[in-house]
Amino acid sequence: MLFNLVERSQTWLDEVGLYPLVQVMFQLEFRAFLAVLLAFALVLALMPRLIRVLRAVKVGDDPEFYGKDLNALMEGKRGTPTMGGILLCGSVFVTVALLADVAHSRYVHVCLVVLAWLAGVGAWDDWMKLTEASRARQNGGKRSRDGLKAWEKLLFQLAIGAIASWFIWDAAAVPDAVALNLPFQRTYLPASTEGAISPVDLAPGVWQMGVLAFVLLGTFMIAFTSNAVNLTDGLDGLAGGTLLVACFAMMVLTWIASSQRAAYFLMVPWVPGSGELMVVSGAMAGACLGFLWFNVAPAQVFMGDTGSLAMGGLLATVAVCIRQEALLVLIGGVFYLEAVSVMAQVGWFKFTRMRFGEGRRLLRCAPVHHHFQMGGWKETQVVGRFYLLAITLAIAALVTLKLR
Amino acid sequence: MLFNLVERSQTWLDEVGLYPLVQVMFQLEFRAFLAVLLAFALVLALMPRLIRVLRAVKVGDDPEFYGKDLNALMEGKRGTPTMGGILLCGSVFVTVALLADVAHSRYVHVCLVVLAWLAGVGAWDDWMKLTEASRARQNGGKRSRDGLKAWEKLLFQLAIGAIASWFIWDAAAVPDAVALNLPFQRTYLPASTEGAISPVDLAPGVWQMGVLAFVLLGTFMIAFTSNAVNLTDGLDGLAGGTLLVACFAMMVLTWIASSQRAAYFLMVPWVPGSGELMVVSGAMAGACLGFLWFNVAPAQVFMGDTGSLAMGGLLATVAVCIRQEALLVLIGGVFYLEAVSVMAQVGWFKFTRMRFGEGRRLLRCAPVHHHFQMGGWKETQVVGRFYLLAITLAIAALVTLKLR
Repeated sequence: MLFNLVERSQTWLDEVGLYPLVQVMFQLEFRAFLAVLLAFALVLALMPRLIRVLRAVKVGDDPEFYGKDLNALMEGKRGTPTMGGILLCGSVFVTVALLADVAHSRYVHVCLVVLAWLAGVGAWDDWMKLTEASRARQNGGKRSRDGLKAWEKLLFQLAIGAIASWFIWDAAAVPDAVALNLPFQRTYLPASTEGAISPVDLAPGVWQMGVLAFVLLGTFMIAFTSNAVNLTDGLDGLAGGTLLVACFAMMVLTWIASSQRAAYFLMVPWVPGSGELMVVSGAMAGACLGFLWFNVAPAQVFMGDTGSLAMGGLLATVAVCIRQEALLVLIGGVFYLEAVSVMAQVGWFKFTRMRFGEGRRLLRCAPVHHHFQMGGWKETQVVGRFYLLAITLAIAALVTLKLR
Repeated sequence: MLFNLVERSQTWLDEVGLYPLVQVMFQLEFRAFLAVLLAFALVLALMPRLIRVLRAVKVGDDPEFYGKDLNALMEGKRGTPTMGGILLCGSVFVTVALLADVAHSRYVHVCLVVLAWLAGVGAWDDWMKLTEASRARQNGGKRSRDGLKAWEKLLFQLAIGAIASWFIWDAAAVPDAVALNLPFQRTYLPASTEGAISPVDLAPGVWQMGVLAFVLLGTFMIAFTSNAVNLTDGLDGLAGGTLLVACFAMMVLTWIASSQRAAYFLMVPWVPGSGELMVVSGAMAGACLGFLWFNVAPAQVFMGDTGSLAMGGLLATVAVCIRQEALLVLIGGVFYLEAVSVMAQVGWFKFTRMRFGEGRRLLRCAPVHHHFQMGGWKETQVVGRFYLLAITLAIAALVTLKLR
């Protein structure tokens, strides 16, 4: 809105001579990096207050929730307030609303709706878990339920995924623009990058998705990533740091997608208007930076489902907008590894129980970060090494841009 | 060398049809990112072996070395092997030798010499500390000395700083090319970035440095940064992680300096041939990534002076080559903050002792990371938050590029 305000008052600003001071707001990269710093500052300034409030209303993590084996590892986390995601998502929302082109960009609207929706679902889930836990303690009995059921959460994720994907499809409009963009494959034919850029053609063999395929793929990516980040959020700083890396990588990808010259040079989809998504990615990165200040081991606050569901879903939404779903799988490799580890563990257990009458485990514990923790790595080592993995994967993803 | 080998065998490779496979080696960005991955892989593969060797010869950190107050905080670090910097620097050296243009680039020669020299000085210092310590233990007496004396180290740092700066000056040759490049100030006049680029002129008011000023500034930057990183290296993962961030930022700056279009667009110095420095920065970043795998808290190995002196000096050398000394102060802000904290603490103590007869302290303990640690932050919190500071400073530095 701040951006739109500046935009509308151009003439007036010019008259009073302030225009040179604010014209930098029209530089995309500047707004994106300003978003990083603003979101960072917002979280840094407000989180101590939020932590006090959360402590006062006893919104703490409840170790009963963990399984038997994990109780010992998680003992130190008792009483750490959760739902810090309120501020994580809140600062992204405010920063994007201030610095992005809210008046015109369809992509920004989609992002804000996805963020609010999934943060709402996450907060509902967090709140139910907490109130159920305290009610169970008071009654001295078992809890009737543990937050939202998995299928209930999934339903909300799939719904917003489908809605977001449909609006993204609608914003693209031209069929050429919704080609499936895979690594190691030219999506467009090489174009001249000197002088005026001529329209480019799709490379042969590239799949132009229909509306159904596009929406299905987008829905899957948004719902799956949202869940994957949720599963990753199990150790101090783990989800926040890996999200931070992914958001920085996404800033690069959105910048490329928004620049006709850069996109055609690298033979990836050029998505007009996707520059605003660089501001969104920047706000996410900044919010993660600020959140990590308080979430670094030993954590003073957790993001909870409020943060993880929304940040994961928003990350995927940005990737769907710029048709980099495939690269997101590499950039967010840690998230998908965590999700797949849970699926493999559960699947193998069920399969072996059916086949041999006795369930067997692939990992010591799922998600995979606990597997390493039980294998003797300290929590900080697991987190640090997963960061290194995330950074390496993000770099590998950017390298593939050149390998087409 | 690998790069030069490919370069020389172009005709042959073309004849046997392998050329399309290796032509990507001529893409600077690809080589730089490959350097990240190669240096990472080298450290990851060889460090466990080095740790075993260092353990066997008892090259462990000796907590006697710390002051009285710090002994309690540092207790857990007893016996952790130091001198991991051997591999940190070794993998940078090997990666640069393989992937950079060693046959032609003067800058690469300077970098390799600085790296080898400072790693040598650091290793000498580390080794003296360790052997003196064990000799003192055997004799049951006090140590005669504690490694190299500060002024001895400084002498070696100033010497290599001067040598490197002189060769960098010599490589630049054109006086226009050694203008003092400050943030928030146009170093060159805006040039057209469309079509052919016309030669650009220095902006009015910019200082064209003479050889003396250039060498003095370069010497100071190299020696000071080398020491500053050395002082930063006091907590698990601190120096490695902040170096990692600085190296990534330096990759961006070297890329800009190497591209005539990008440099003139941003009105910063265009330094022909500086592209190879992106490979150097990439190798440094990769080596830090690999080193952090083992250095993340609780650390299995320390870099020692071998690593910190050399990596700090090399970082500054790269900055001097591309005339981004001023931005390095922001990018490496954490290092300089640490160095200044020590100078302020010592200076204030001496001043107050002279003035009031009793020395007073500004900080609970210097370098400043111990100040926060004694103030109640956990080691992992200090390290994590210094990372966040480093990332924010690096982003701020990149933002200033647009503010000219």
